[in-house]
Amino acid sequence: MDIRVQKTFEALFALEDIREMLRRSLPGTGPADMKSFKEQIRQTRSILDDLEAGSGNPQITKIGGTLGIRSREEEYVNIQPIQAAGRLTPEARKALIAYGDGYSTCDSCRKPFRLDKISKPPIADFHQELADFLNMDTVRVVPGARRGFQAVTSSLVKPGDQVIVSSLAHYTEFLAVEAAGGIVKEVPLDENNIITADGTAEKIESVISETGRTPALIMIDHFDYQFANEHDVEGIGKVARQYDIPFLCNGAYTVGVMPVDGKKIGADFIVGSGHKSMASPAPSGVLATTDEWADIVFRTTQMKGDLTNRKFGVKEVEMLGCTLMGSTLMAMIASFPAVKERTQNWNVEVKKSNFLIDRLLEIEGSAVLSEYPRKHALSKVDTTGSFDVVADHHKRRGFFFSDELSRKGIVGEFAGATRKWKLSTYGLSWEKVNYLADSLQEIAETHELKVNRADR
Amino acid sequence: MDIRVQKTFEALFALEDIREMLRRSLPGTGPADMKSFKEQIRQTRSILDDLEAGSGNPQITKIGGTLGIRSREEEYVNIQPIQAAGRLTPEARKALIAYGDGYSTCDSCRKPFRLDKISKPPIADFHQELADFLNMDTVRVVPGARRGFQAVTSSLVKPGDQVIVSSLAHYTEFLAVEAAGGIVKEVPLDENNIITADGTAEKIESVISETGRTPALIMIDHFDYQFANEHDVEGIGKVARQYDIPFLCNGAYTVGVMPVDGKKIGADFIVGSGHKSMASPAPSGVLATTDEWADIVFRTTQMKGDLTNRKFGVKEVEMLGCTLMGSTLMAMIASFPAVKERTQNWNVEVKKSNFLIDRLLEIEGSAVLSEYPRKHALSKVDTTGSFDVVADHHKRRGFFFSDELSRKGIVGEFAGATRKWKLSTYGLSWEKVNYLADSLQEIAETHELKVNRADR
Repeated sequence: MDIRVQKTFEALFALEDIREMLRRSLPGTGPADMKSFKEQIRQTRSILDDLEAGSGNPQITKIGGTLGIRSREEEYVNIQPIQAAGRLTPEARKALIAYGDGYSTCDSCRKPFRLDKISKPPIADFHQELADFLNMDTVRVVPGARRGFQAVTSSLVKPGDQVIVSSLAHYTEFLAVEAAGGIVKEVPLDENNIITADGTAEKIESVISETGRTPALIMIDHFDYQFANEHDVEGIGKVARQYDIPFLCNGAYTVGVMPVDGKKIGADFIVGSGHKSMASPAPSGVLATTDEWADIVFRTTQMKGDLTNRKFGVKEVEMLGCTLMGSTLMAMIASFPAVKERTQNWNVEVKKSNFLIDRLLEIEGSAVLSEYPRKHALSKVDTTGSFDVVADHHKRRGFFFSDELSRKGIVGEFAGATRKWKLSTYGLSWEKVNYLADSLQEIAETHELKVNRADR
Repeated sequence: MDIRVQKTFEALFALEDIREMLRRSLPGTGPADMKSFKEQIRQTRSILDDLEAGSGNPQITKIGGTLGIRSREEEYVNIQPIQAAGRLTPEARKALIAYGDGYSTCDSCRKPFRLDKISKPPIADFHQELADFLNMDTVRVVPGARRGFQAVTSSLVKPGDQVIVSSLAHYTEFLAVEAAGGIVKEVPLDENNIITADGTAEKIESVISETGRTPALIMIDHFDYQFANEHDVEGIGKVARQYDIPFLCNGAYTVGVMPVDGKKIGADFIVGSGHKSMASPAPSGVLATTDEWADIVFRTTQMKGDLTNRKFGVKEVEMLGCTLMGSTLMAMIASFPAVKERTQNWNVEVKKSNFLIDRLLEIEGSAVLSEYPRKHALSKVDTTGSFDVVADHHKRRGFFFSDELSRKGIVGEFAGATRKWKLSTYGLSWEKVNYLADSLQEIAETHELKVNRADR
């Protein structure tokens, strides 16, 4: 590990040990063992000296004896397709530090005892801001987008019901339908790998003519996980209203990176992922809905103890009461101002994405499988005609490419893959995007692939 | 805030800002702006000076402009009943720092692409160790104990099915049954507020005679959340086998603090809570089961796309695929060695609990509502005859007690409550337990309550 990165972690860990001394002392007395305390501060200073000079040897290699220190974001340009927009902001990391303890959100929980009602820390405010941000009426935070899908299918889909999904639907949508006993019916892609309003309407018609009933739910991805193509969610929203079918728009790849307007889309539900697109720790996500559906999906418990007559008032069945207690939610809140701001700069992220793809396409034999020009930072590319030609007769086969990237400090491609693979430029500075583009072209040239550089 | 605590947080935050500089730099180049980097290190050193001297002024009061810095564990003796055993270990806090980014666990995810199969970091090993720890065959981590209940009820309980629960069942058990369409049937408490095997058998008989069918599931708390009384889970395990009804033992208050042996209990399912009892961030928990039930509760998806014929192989329906990606799981793993060790010292925690309760009982008019002697660190006490007598004619009413505790650096009681309330001594050092006991007696004497000190 780069010694400065190593020493930064060591300094952070040394301070956690100092913090533990404070935790063990009696109130108001200061550290019980002032000598050890001062010694620990002395050590921290010495780590800072190494950090500044970029010198010294690693002192800590494993956390708790088992976990290596993860330095992927500090040491590399990370192009991993699903990690980019979940990378924490510094504020989120500070919130994790301050609120890590299990029930840290619950210090001031008062009647009616529900997470989204807590005002200190400002969790209730955050819920309102998040609803406004999505232009929806009500939101709840959930442990991952998948738990948002589950709450909706569990509320609306009965065994045997059919649910319209995309031919590019994420597996968690399949599972959420399956858990409710429903059956998925896929809308075909058009010739450009897009889910259209017409395609959706036709699929609805085919379900109606087959079963005599309208589908119970439409669940379509705003941008899909395979190509990150944009699908016609506004058109599909209109179709959904025409057929009076509730519409869940899966914003796992959009909520938190680009503006998403639930009302404009005409969605009954918007689902987002915290760890995928909202600079938040896992598992986190958001389920937003309208006043029309809130009482159904966020219905409160009606169960009553037969002996004790106990009822649990405002607790919501599908949320199982409170959802994201502790640091997961606090980090989500801490990132939120930056997340709101970054969605306003989405056009810049799209520019970076197209810049990189254009430079990749200059490497002869390369292609882009996602819609082009790109409308998203995540892209699927095909280098069967370029890097894979090298892999064909390289002794490391496809791993030559990972080796080369790694040598340049680039990680996140799927190791060994040189045919169809995905990458994301999300959140990388222009400097890093340039570096990445140059690196890809240099690797190509090193292996005698032709690069048709455009004049720039 | 105590200035040393304040400065510890400021130093941690300053280092996160340094870390961010490293994150923004190109691979292998070091900080792009060496001047700012050195300036930030200089500032960190200056914070350390203040930390050592216990001097200086607070520079940061809000994270991200909105979240106060939580210092409850650093500045106070925290007796909050549900927070005690979820308090993070230093190793867990270090894991949160290193693995905070959304999908940090997924760097080396390979076929078959499932969280519990990942070997680097050692997630697969952790699953096996956790199963061994509980003496069960298979475990999965889940976002909170409640999600473990839900997976079981969703798999075993059909609409209209009856489920045996305790008269002290946690509300999340009610909700999990309700979500599956089942109906709770409560076992009565005996005269000591204990759920017995006989009581459970009688309730089963009454369900059978009422409905003609055996209940679908028995779900009983090992120790309950109201009194933290121990219930006869081994006896209930035998009854469950006699009637051939699956038995879920809710170990939210035991798994991670005391030894729990699933086979000895005769449980088909053991559920534990990470943020309640395993020194882990929220939301986290564990669902353990036997080979007999694993294929049912952890069944893999059978859903197939009607157009694409896509199937998602090993993904488990009730888990919705992967569960605790990222820092939540990493912190759980980092705490695990300490958690295993501390369960072996449970008798010491029980001793502290009894010591504190005995000292409280010396305050005339006080009583303990939980079983006594205590078998758990969490207790429900009744101070209607002591502190509430003071509250009766104090201008701050019940808040006088919170004020007094707070003045002594003790927090976690329910503010304003002086009648029946709960506290936990879990994880407090003997020094802190003594301090707490002395403080309670001093507050009593200050307000002219009689304290019958035993000879010690």
